[in-house]
Amino acid sequence: MKVVEAKILRSLAEAALVRVGAPVEHASLQAEVLLEAELRGVSSHGVLRLPRIISRVVNGVSNARATGQHEWASSAFLVVDGKRGLGPVVAKSAIDALLERAAGTGIAAAAVTNSNHIGMLAWYAEYVASKGYSIVALSTSEALVHPWGSRKAMIGTNPIAIGVPSVNGPFVMDTATSVVSMGEIHDHANRKAKIPAHWALDGNGNPTTDAEAAKNGAIAPFGQAKGYALGLAFELLVSGLAASAIGRDVRGTLDDTNICNKGDLFIVMPGPRRELESYLQAIRGMEPAEGFDAVLIPGERGRACRDRRLREGIPVVSEIYESLLRLAGVPAAA
Amino acid sequence: MKVVEAKILRSLAEAALVRVGAPVEHASLQAEVLLEAELRGVSSHGVLRLPRIISRVVNGVSNARATGQHEWASSAFLVVDGKRGLGPVVAKSAIDALLERAAGTGIAAAAVTNSNHIGMLAWYAEYVASKGYSIVALSTSEALVHPWGSRKAMIGTNPIAIGVPSVNGPFVMDTATSVVSMGEIHDHANRKAKIPAHWALDGNGNPTTDAEAAKNGAIAPFGQAKGYALGLAFELLVSGLAASAIGRDVRGTLDDTNICNKGDLFIVMPGPRRELESYLQAIRGMEPAEGFDAVLIPGERGRACRDRRLREGIPVVSEIYESLLRLAGVPAAA
Repeated sequence: MKVVEAKILRSLAEAALVRVGAPVEHASLQAEVLLEAELRGVSSHGVLRLPRIISRVVNGVSNARATGQHEWASSAFLVVDGKRGLGPVVAKSAIDALLERAAGTGIAAAAVTNSNHIGMLAWYAEYVASKGYSIVALSTSEALVHPWGSRKAMIGTNPIAIGVPSVNGPFVMDTATSVVSMGEIHDHANRKAKIPAHWALDGNGNPTTDAEAAKNGAIAPFGQAKGYALGLAFELLVSGLAASAIGRDVRGTLDDTNICNKGDLFIVMPGPRRELESYLQAIRGMEPAEGFDAVLIPGERGRACRDRRLREGIPVVSEIYESLLRLAGVPAAA
Repeated sequence: MKVVEAKILRSLAEAALVRVGAPVEHASLQAEVLLEAELRGVSSHGVLRLPRIISRVVNGVSNARATGQHEWASSAFLVVDGKRGLGPVVAKSAIDALLERAAGTGIAAAAVTNSNHIGMLAWYAEYVASKGYSIVALSTSEALVHPWGSRKAMIGTNPIAIGVPSVNGPFVMDTATSVVSMGEIHDHANRKAKIPAHWALDGNGNPTTDAEAAKNGAIAPFGQAKGYALGLAFELLVSGLAASAIGRDVRGTLDDTNICNKGDLFIVMPGPRRELESYLQAIRGMEPAEGFDAVLIPGERGRACRDRRLREGIPVVSEIYESLLRLAGVPAAA
């Protein structure tokens, strides 16, 4: 592990993207979304993803100059063809259009396809909530999750993020509908650690605690049948509205050769019409249960991590840091 | 248990409501929503709730004639003051307004307060999806669920329903964000059965398998921290947009003396822009895992139950059936 200052990590990511032809503004936004994940301790959505983002641009399946083509199907419903643009660039462009539109319509939604991986959904939730609007953000992914009671993967990890403005900073939650990420399973496999029972099935559809076997299997939905129902509903809602690929047809967020055909859905709504902070404060002040130190509000541990890492730097796996240096064209001695 | 023909159960519920002053159209809709829950095997949201609905009207905390007052805060965002109307009457009136508006705006939402318990959310999801639109429906409730890592209830059971049209009938999922309903815990207590570990805490905030102790305690969120994050997000989103009560201030869905101050949020969106049925068909055809008979699509077991109960009748607890007869003014000999 190497501890790297946030602004240095950001500059390296930006430089690497500019080097393959991204306009500075696009490189800066893509770098920002990766960096915010690192700052909040979500390294699965951090700079680890940059080499693939770069290869995709180099291979022509991602177009770092595109922002997406907007078509208002009706006054409050935007259909976006991402034109293979960088995920955060296409997503922010769509969301900015929604924020502008929602000022008049109250609610507005965008269904996005032909865009790339948009990174940590919480970034968009925080962005919208910081402008005084509420948001529900959904995205689909490659099929990695098994329907409850089945043996094989058929559903994306299909995360949801919800942002609601509040006076002490936005409330932001962001969770996949899988019990755990495939990144976490790979991490266990790399460390030769067992995974908990009920996390995953092996390639034959049998429960396993062997992380290596789980890599070729399927992850469980979180919360059993309920999480399955939610993940499937998101798959249908997003792919239905975005006319994006569904289930096992989804490609392009885990490889660097396929055009990305998943979908995203953003619903921007008004900010709250009542005070919420005293309720959040009451939850923070609750007595913790046996085995817990504190009762946490989603997103706030990440925000505390962010404050710390801004001061103390971000721990990055040395190999990843070195690949960033190479991609940014910085001599190894630097 | 008594097995009752669906149309008889519906007539009794309708008659009971008309008897306390509900217009026939309102009585019919309220009865329909209760009946559909019974047909789908969701007895917790069935006629068991009718005596309370009736008492609330008699006590003046519910107004069976009201449909709610609509105010378009912006072109696609409707704010509804339910005027203490019956939940299904206020909800359907709001949703009908959204369906009409969404024909032009694409997406439209309604935030509802001062309405009563709206029953099984799936009813509204199925209604909207059967008209060719997609919907996300949310509702709050009395605080029955504990924040993850805490000892006391502070969050509603906050269900979500999602409906998406598809050629072989709408996809409809509907789930609370609690691991189980309070009704299920009461049912275990009545049968003197233990509840599984991790379902609930007792009144002191300690884990319990004693259903009787759990009645005065708190239910766990489904899926641990993830379900907590979702349930809390729904609490903030709904109460924020509806300006309804929050957390422990919520009253009126479990008693018959308090004005109901929870909120509902309906988001109506376009129907799918691509075919979805072949994906659902592929899931139905998957090999079941060890211990499962079939891979199910959410909502479809309820639909099969509905077909069966339409043919064979609905099993109703005898005491509840007798109270229905009394409320409908039918002589006991009938």
